[in-house]
Amino acid sequence: MPKVVDHDARRAEIAAALWRVVMRDGLEAASVRRVAAEAGWSTGSLRHYFSTQGELLAFAMELVVRRATERITALPTDGEPREVADRILREVLPLDDERRAEMQVWLAFAMHALVDPDLHDVFARAHANLRGLCVRIAETLGSPRPARDGERLHAFVDGLALHAVVAPDRTTPRRMRALLRDALASLV
Amino acid sequence: MPKVVDHDARRAEIAAALWRVVMRDGLEAASVRRVAAEAGWSTGSLRHYFSTQGELLAFAMELVVRRATERITALPTDGEPREVADRILREVLPLDDERRAEMQVWLAFAMHALVDPDLHDVFARAHANLRGLCVRIAETLGSPRPARDGERLHAFVDGLALHAVVAPDRTTPRRMRALLRDALASLV
Repeated sequence: MPKVVDHDARRAEIAAALWRVVMRDGLEAASVRRVAAEAGWSTGSLRHYFSTQGELLAFAMELVVRRATERITALPTDGEPREVADRILREVLPLDDERRAEMQVWLAFAMHALVDPDLHDVFARAHANLRGLCVRIAETLGSPRPARDGERLHAFVDGLALHAVVAPDRTTPRRMRALLRDALASLV
Repeated sequence: MPKVVDHDARRAEIAAALWRVVMRDGLEAASVRRVAAEAGWSTGSLRHYFSTQGELLAFAMELVVRRATERITALPTDGEPREVADRILREVLPLDDERRAEMQVWLAFAMHALVDPDLHDVFARAHANLRGLCVRIAETLGSPRPARDGERLHAFVDGLALHAVVAPDRTTPRRMRALLRDALASLV
């Protein structure tokens, strides 16, 4: 029987190793060589999947977006509009350790995207998607100015996610849920 | 006459060179050697002021905080409470190019502070100060739950500042001012 390699699983394994390096030592440390060592791979094997650090970072960034999108798509859609909105935005907030790790890596990417054109497109698309989602939520909740209120909600959600990473002692999951409910209530 | 050296001015000059390097090439590039070259100094002269990259970064971070604090302290305090609050928080938002540059460097610092204990204290103090300011504003505006509403305002302000850096085309100064007014109005 031919050997079957699950390329998606192997790429995800590499992304996980990248995240560990970024969380421990910062994005600047995440070279192809270091990530290969972290994953227990040879540098050559890793280059089979990603030939440059830029490709590796862009893939890991896309993966964060894809995971959040999958979580949101899988949600039940029943309930009051505000409850549905709350459920959706909770998936964007780093309410557990895994998602806080994702968010920390995401923020490092966002900063790096400012000086790296390869990452900029991935970031800009994700940013526009979340803004669109927030504007639709404001519409659904009956805001009279959904574009403006949606952008305010977007700033709040991203700021709260930022605080969860940089000030986790204070920005607990419980506190984030309470502040998100307040923010949704303030839209109408 | 003895030669008088204005040490504060020279340190500020170095910080400005550091900012240019960080904005152009990212925080990872801001070594003592690179910053010295950017400032047109010898590495040895720069080490007279900052012996390590950590000291240099901590100083530049403190300088961002000090500038914002000085701007806020110099503001007139007359007017309606909401107008005063608006005036204060506009000083925290990156409403011009200089402050957007400051904010970009600040965010790079905030991320770096996660993996660098020397920077962490500077960051944690500044974060707590801005939270305190937002809670006092919520109190002054008559919020029934100032701690919670102040934290929501804090998340919004930081998220908006983040957006000004990562999505400047959309997050214009005019838009930021409008969203800030909405956020203050939503507190009561």
